[in-house]
Amino acid sequence: MKTHRTTRPLKVALLGYGTVGKSVARILDERVDEVTLAAILMRPGYTPSDVRMTDSYETIVCDPTIDVVVECMGGLEPAHEYLLRALLAGKHVVTSNKAVVAAYFADFVSAGEKSGAALRIEACVGGGIPWIAGIEKAKRIDAITSFYGIMNGTTNYIVYSMQKDGTDFAEALGKAQELGYAEREPSADIDGFDVCAKTVISATVAFDTLCTTAVPTSGIRNLTRRDLAFFSNHGRTVKLFGHGVCEDGRYAVAVEPVAVPIESLESHVVSNFNMISLTGATIGELKFYGQGAGGNPTANAVVQDIIDVARGNYPVYPCARADAPALRYDPDLLRSSYVIRTNAAIPDSTVYEPGAYVVHDITAVQARELLEGALKTDSTSFMAALGERDQS
Amino acid sequence: MKTHRTTRPLKVALLGYGTVGKSVARILDERVDEVTLAAILMRPGYTPSDVRMTDSYETIVCDPTIDVVVECMGGLEPAHEYLLRALLAGKHVVTSNKAVVAAYFADFVSAGEKSGAALRIEACVGGGIPWIAGIEKAKRIDAITSFYGIMNGTTNYIVYSMQKDGTDFAEALGKAQELGYAEREPSADIDGFDVCAKTVISATVAFDTLCTTAVPTSGIRNLTRRDLAFFSNHGRTVKLFGHGVCEDGRYAVAVEPVAVPIESLESHVVSNFNMISLTGATIGELKFYGQGAGGNPTANAVVQDIIDVARGNYPVYPCARADAPALRYDPDLLRSSYVIRTNAAIPDSTVYEPGAYVVHDITAVQARELLEGALKTDSTSFMAALGERDQS
Repeated sequence: MKTHRTTRPLKVALLGYGTVGKSVARILDERVDEVTLAAILMRPGYTPSDVRMTDSYETIVCDPTIDVVVECMGGLEPAHEYLLRALLAGKHVVTSNKAVVAAYFADFVSAGEKSGAALRIEACVGGGIPWIAGIEKAKRIDAITSFYGIMNGTTNYIVYSMQKDGTDFAEALGKAQELGYAEREPSADIDGFDVCAKTVISATVAFDTLCTTAVPTSGIRNLTRRDLAFFSNHGRTVKLFGHGVCEDGRYAVAVEPVAVPIESLESHVVSNFNMISLTGATIGELKFYGQGAGGNPTANAVVQDIIDVARGNYPVYPCARADAPALRYDPDLLRSSYVIRTNAAIPDSTVYEPGAYVVHDITAVQARELLEGALKTDSTSFMAALGERDQS
Repeated sequence: MKTHRTTRPLKVALLGYGTVGKSVARILDERVDEVTLAAILMRPGYTPSDVRMTDSYETIVCDPTIDVVVECMGGLEPAHEYLLRALLAGKHVVTSNKAVVAAYFADFVSAGEKSGAALRIEACVGGGIPWIAGIEKAKRIDAITSFYGIMNGTTNYIVYSMQKDGTDFAEALGKAQELGYAEREPSADIDGFDVCAKTVISATVAFDTLCTTAVPTSGIRNLTRRDLAFFSNHGRTVKLFGHGVCEDGRYAVAVEPVAVPIESLESHVVSNFNMISLTGATIGELKFYGQGAGGNPTANAVVQDIIDVARGNYPVYPCARADAPALRYDPDLLRSSYVIRTNAAIPDSTVYEPGAYVVHDITAVQARELLEGALKTDSTSFMAALGERDQS
């Protein structure tokens, strides 16, 4: 739907012209009247195909007519420097770069507060899913007491593909790379770092506190077909979750594989889709499902943020300032039973399946330590939390 | 999250003090600073428990200090009259009454346009799920090409309960009534009229056209355990769907049971929850899941609308005016194969299970006609569309 305004359209500079950046440019040009894409920052040595392209960030950040800087480059530097300079110069920032936001959330918020510039981050978590906006809306009425879910399309695709086609992990990863769902260097996805950044950002927004970046983080790198088979014997499958809980002035967060009951909604999330849930006092549980990655859905989220900036319709994150009053981080809030498949000795455990053990009622931090210990003896060890059965 | 404004808080009058109305009052009093609940319209003969209670709508509609009228009474009259008068008097209207909005959408929009008053209807569809807002947000960028899903918690609970506990329809309905999920007169739920109103409203907002109210509508009144068993043999279960499609200046809508593949997300929606999906060109498919009914979730949606009104942040629906340019209603856009279980003769069909037949590739309107014909011979006949298998 084209929208119309009578004031001067906001001028946008786009940093980065990869899959997401190209989609942002196309959507702005073809579908949105209320902002104008005025500049596109390219890598040095680019082949010019649009008069708006430049390889000089100086030109952009010093241009007083640029109102919004939209960053789709990824990586920590120079994204961190560029966004900080944009915010200090009073330019609103919209970014899809979860790594840089998770690492420098407080710096960005402080810079924006000084100049009055907005920071919008919808595309950092859940691609096209209106997840950050969903949290922000719920918070107008409720305190968010927990969130959890599938926040990484690559790992969901890998597990889905292993189950559907009976392939092993390496083969499924290769297929994900072929399809463009996984990077050539897949560690950020399969070791949980991508979900960790998304969890830090979600917790910061949901719980109104600058979330620790020291999150217990495990991935699915060591998941085997045999693991999936024995979880299946117990009516479960494996999904990589980010989650957080908040109560009584304390919060906890974790990133880890969860052996979810086969009858759960999450177990039926196919391909590279995401599904993320929040719980609030009056709203109960809300779930949001959609494409967690990909050029168009992620660009859609970026453009939604740009439209909100243009309409002056966005919350701020004073909670994310380094000097804001903080909730207490208390790992004890996130407890579960864990299954660990390993050749290492696991004390205080019961047998789950041959070669796999259950450790009951430990925190996510204790579970992560347990896995790290086991990995020293058996580098193929795999661990998953035992997700709760649906109470309905 | 308490929010703060420096201007005079908007004054709200609440019409109706049932389950939803009471929750709205409690949420406004306890959780929202930017509006003030100033009056509560009760039925004549009420027992006063709050100084704000009155049984005079005249007092409310003639009070120039009342900014927003919030209706949670239900039913067509006097809700229709009250809301029309409020809008004509320039009072913003927020309502959870899907029946009255579906029936008088054009009248309400015209009245609001004349006076500049807003009409907000989030709570009419999907209870606490941000569904109407989700459509409106997606439309800022995309044309919505289709929507579908579970929009009625009562019928979802009945089918869920029949499957989980092996009870028959009457028993499951009785349990739903005990739990307060179903009305004593359950026709609106089990015959699909409730979903019909929600479908009309969703289509009007999603497709930017005043949707016909002549929607082919079938319910689940005749669903038996045996039906569920034979669908289960085919890897399916039954869910009552509202759906709509829109393409090339044409649209179609329908309300009918769908035999969904057991591996679909919708088949795993438990208890009285709802799950509704939309598809747009750049966003792809988004799904929204949550409590489709109940005091707190529905009241949450009402209060979200009130907050948006207070902040001046809401779209209008010129599309819903009776004299707005309309899309063409073309039933041919919604085609499927249908299974009909009946003792009546079904021409041009193949056998699905003993006593049940498949009719291939007909429209929802033709299917409804087929069922109406069969019901004349066999009043227990049941029909469901065959939902597509996931292509992922």
